[in-house]
Amino acid sequence: MRASQFFVSTLKEAPSDAEIVSHKLMLRAGLIRKVAAGIYTYMPMGLRVIRKVENIVREEMDRAGALELTMPMVQPAELWQETGRWDKMGDELLRFKDRHERDFALQPTSEEVITDTARQELKSYRQLPKNFYQIQTKFRDERRPRFGVMRGREFTMKDAYSFDRDVDAAGRSYDAMYAAYCRIFDRMGLTYRAVAADTGAIGGDRSHEFQVIADTGEDAIVYCPQSDYAANIELAEALPLLASRAAPGADLVKTPTPGKATCADVAALLGVPLETTVKSLVLATDDVDEAGQPAGVTVWLLLVRGDHELNEVKAGKLEGLKNGFRFASEAEILEHFGCKPGYLGPIGLLKPVKVVADRTVANMADFICGANAEDFHYTGANWGRDLPEPDLVADIRNVVAGDPSPDGKGELAIQRGIEVGHVFYLGTKYSKAMNATFLDEDGRPKPFEMGCYGIGITRIPGAAIEQNHDERGIIWPDAIAPFQAVICPVGWGRSEAVRDTATALYEALRAAGIDAILDDRDERPGVMFADWELVGVPHRITIGDRGLKEGQVEYQGRRDAEATKLAVDGLAEAVLARLALR
Amino acid sequence: MRASQFFVSTLKEAPSDAEIVSHKLMLRAGLIRKVAAGIYTYMPMGLRVIRKVENIVREEMDRAGALELTMPMVQPAELWQETGRWDKMGDELLRFKDRHERDFALQPTSEEVITDTARQELKSYRQLPKNFYQIQTKFRDERRPRFGVMRGREFTMKDAYSFDRDVDAAGRSYDAMYAAYCRIFDRMGLTYRAVAADTGAIGGDRSHEFQVIADTGEDAIVYCPQSDYAANIELAEALPLLASRAAPGADLVKTPTPGKATCADVAALLGVPLETTVKSLVLATDDVDEAGQPAGVTVWLLLVRGDHELNEVKAGKLEGLKNGFRFASEAEILEHFGCKPGYLGPIGLLKPVKVVADRTVANMADFICGANAEDFHYTGANWGRDLPEPDLVADIRNVVAGDPSPDGKGELAIQRGIEVGHVFYLGTKYSKAMNATFLDEDGRPKPFEMGCYGIGITRIPGAAIEQNHDERGIIWPDAIAPFQAVICPVGWGRSEAVRDTATALYEALRAAGIDAILDDRDERPGVMFADWELVGVPHRITIGDRGLKEGQVEYQGRRDAEATKLAVDGLAEAVLARLALR
Repeated sequence: MRASQFFVSTLKEAPSDAEIVSHKLMLRAGLIRKVAAGIYTYMPMGLRVIRKVENIVREEMDRAGALELTMPMVQPAELWQETGRWDKMGDELLRFKDRHERDFALQPTSEEVITDTARQELKSYRQLPKNFYQIQTKFRDERRPRFGVMRGREFTMKDAYSFDRDVDAAGRSYDAMYAAYCRIFDRMGLTYRAVAADTGAIGGDRSHEFQVIADTGEDAIVYCPQSDYAANIELAEALPLLASRAAPGADLVKTPTPGKATCADVAALLGVPLETTVKSLVLATDDVDEAGQPAGVTVWLLLVRGDHELNEVKAGKLEGLKNGFRFASEAEILEHFGCKPGYLGPIGLLKPVKVVADRTVANMADFICGANAEDFHYTGANWGRDLPEPDLVADIRNVVAGDPSPDGKGELAIQRGIEVGHVFYLGTKYSKAMNATFLDEDGRPKPFEMGCYGIGITRIPGAAIEQNHDERGIIWPDAIAPFQAVICPVGWGRSEAVRDTATALYEALRAAGIDAILDDRDERPGVMFADWELVGVPHRITIGDRGLKEGQVEYQGRRDAEATKLAVDGLAEAVLARLALR
Repeated sequence: MRASQFFVSTLKEAPSDAEIVSHKLMLRAGLIRKVAAGIYTYMPMGLRVIRKVENIVREEMDRAGALELTMPMVQPAELWQETGRWDKMGDELLRFKDRHERDFALQPTSEEVITDTARQELKSYRQLPKNFYQIQTKFRDERRPRFGVMRGREFTMKDAYSFDRDVDAAGRSYDAMYAAYCRIFDRMGLTYRAVAADTGAIGGDRSHEFQVIADTGEDAIVYCPQSDYAANIELAEALPLLASRAAPGADLVKTPTPGKATCADVAALLGVPLETTVKSLVLATDDVDEAGQPAGVTVWLLLVRGDHELNEVKAGKLEGLKNGFRFASEAEILEHFGCKPGYLGPIGLLKPVKVVADRTVANMADFICGANAEDFHYTGANWGRDLPEPDLVADIRNVVAGDPSPDGKGELAIQRGIEVGHVFYLGTKYSKAMNATFLDEDGRPKPFEMGCYGIGITRIPGAAIEQNHDERGIIWPDAIAPFQAVICPVGWGRSEAVRDTATALYEALRAAGIDAILDDRDERPGVMFADWELVGVPHRITIGDRGLKEGQVEYQGRRDAEATKLAVDGLAEAVLARLALR
């Protein structure tokens, strides 16, 4: 491509509503332009990145035996009603009526449509396994679209759905997708981790997120540098930090802590480590009887160490909480604790409360907790002596860096990540809801064992930029750069030697299959360099009269601190060698 | 691709709601599956065709210097309100509200969004010309979606938009697109015509439809076999069939024609040629005064020869009718003609009526027309003698086969066609409405001269099938076939020789870049042949033990009546030679 024939549109400043670096750089480099909140046009420069991402995904999906199809963006309500998602999904599912007042939605994913296809098309076990995928526009009506392509409303997703005879076969489909995803993100040149994730109501251990590592990532991901353990924070298991409970060593004392409503403040006031305090969190469940009628409220007190955070996903898996919970109201707290939040604790309850202690809390002795009296905490509290043993001991906290790895092989570390892919075993959730069955070898109908596998195509450029940028702009990995190399001729308009050398190199790179751009705009070097460093082209060759007199041109990799000289003789080969190094 | 790894899903019968052959065959061949009215999933077999169509379009658009981008499917009302199309477009524009009650529409085309992009991005004449295109999902909420992909609601369109400095430059952009379209449809192997089309309010002569010729086409296209004249029926000029008006030769006679309300019936009753009769059509315009207030109704009588049809597009260009017209009500007809329809004519009107005669009618003498009295017609009517000269003489009829070509080079013929592309000069219609200007060389802001250029990507397979099919199924042109060649091994499961020969040929074709499928399903020959003839793969090689014993396999082109023998020695080369012939 010649730059004069292309559309290079860079901005000095990003619009003020761009909050994160990838959003700012994508706007400044002319990759995207905003059309409405969370809705963008992919400009020619941006679309080149998207197409390269799509092609890698497509090649690896095909290699893994998946079959591409395209489901509609506009989907009828009837299918979504079969699974109940028409009602269950929030406003993210954009619903509307057509001219005949029939209900439709814009696809956020396509489990319903593909399961409908499968129940019509896959009649026999002989047709299994099958894995269908599409690379197609999706829409989620986010309440607060932001971060550019990272949390947009209209986006492109690759979504795949596998159909298998049984759990074992579904496991093989899952493993094949896991392997394909590793190849995909390897080929894209991204630093990523596949981390175990929560499977929710589906159960089992087959759910992995593919997270691009970036300090600015929304997600916390947990790993063990000494082993291959990796999970997202929602799932990562927190072992007890105390192997056993020590004997009581202090008396229970009701201690004035005026105005100190947080563990940190109390610890500071008393001059003790935060690790000696216990934090109280009060939840409530609205119980129903066997007939499904309301049957009162159960109040829950969850206890984690003062320096720990409650993990709501883990709490949501506990017996009694797994059908849904909420934080207790102030009235419910007063009724059960006789005190307002900030000074709550497990000692001296007015009414029965289910007490759940985190594994570490359950082994603490002489701990500090709220006294259920405003401006007072207890010190020297001990299980069994000052209060009953907890009703339940469970892992209900987020791990923190330095915690022992659940596999016993070292200490956990935490990174930030951006989710770009997710592989998920669905079981028979959708096939049973939609009565999607096949005839098995024994002649009996069985529901498909399913899996679903997503990749956020339009999110990947954003994640790649969050991971790879500097103060001058984007630094693309070669495989997904809009152009692999840029040739910057200095004095294009006035020097035939520069034009000839630049054009010859351009043609040689093109002939070698390199996606190069020749900057024939006749701009000053400063303008060219600023543009291409902002756009993030990974390799630059600068050709000027001064160098040519000495038979030399300059090569500079986007991450290189300085340019290096290359001889004009054998120039194309030398440049190709540089490209091959990446 | 091996058939066992692919998804071949053919049906013996098409669903009963499939009306036309392409719809039936696309369903039977497993190319598409219906999700809702006018909304389809493109199954793997169908998507292969779509991808090949897209690739040809993309290559030729790129070759023509157009730049690909992707605009959003969900577009904000504000842009559509700027051009007035938010209100002017009918229910085809699917409008809805997002969760914040803001108005959006699904794109049917993208003039507004691209013009908005241009006014932000293209500031100087130095950046022109530019042509941006996208290949993207569109939605039109058709009242009655039908004919499968031919008139669906969700579809894929390639839409391009050119931006130029002036009319001449816009003409060059137009010509470049016209040439690209010819290359595109040539490469697809389709028989088509580029026909001049109406430009409506834009004016000028730069509007061409690309019509795939098929007897089942919705559109009538007019051409001259002796010249390069071609136009759609709406535009094709009808010359007068009588060079001048003969002198009156008969007396005006009010003739009883009881119950004969059509020209054909009257001519039959009287035993005269249909060409001696004149048909009366009554229109009305609702007039407004200078302040835009209603100012009564004007009634129009349009006269065409009895064997001709009124052309409403031509009528709509007449002074007085070009701001919109309707057919007159029965009350209006009675008021002006004193008679009900069927016996209307230009002689003896009760109230003033604007009389418009077709060019041919204006030169008729001794003609027959309604007498404005039930069950009576006049014979021997003559302009000037029996009634005043018409208020207006104009071309207001459709041409018919045998009419003289407007270029004077022969006689017109008529074919049926399916519109698959349209190139259109827009002028400044959108740029003025949206105040989209650039700074010209003289430092003054000027509105962009625009053109728009569409190709119905998902309609092309339907059109190709309407043009190319037989009683056994589809006959794809090589360039857009889902597979170029199929290898059918007879006895895959039992004969190693068959497997080896088939596999070797498959690998050789693949290595040569041929998109072949190896049918390793171990089906009987009849099943294989029926499937691949239905699917329409253009080349088939059948390999069986019997032939192999004589060192032979069978080749059959999809249009060939019989198979021909090919020697196993040099088989791949022989097959490649056959493929190259197409």
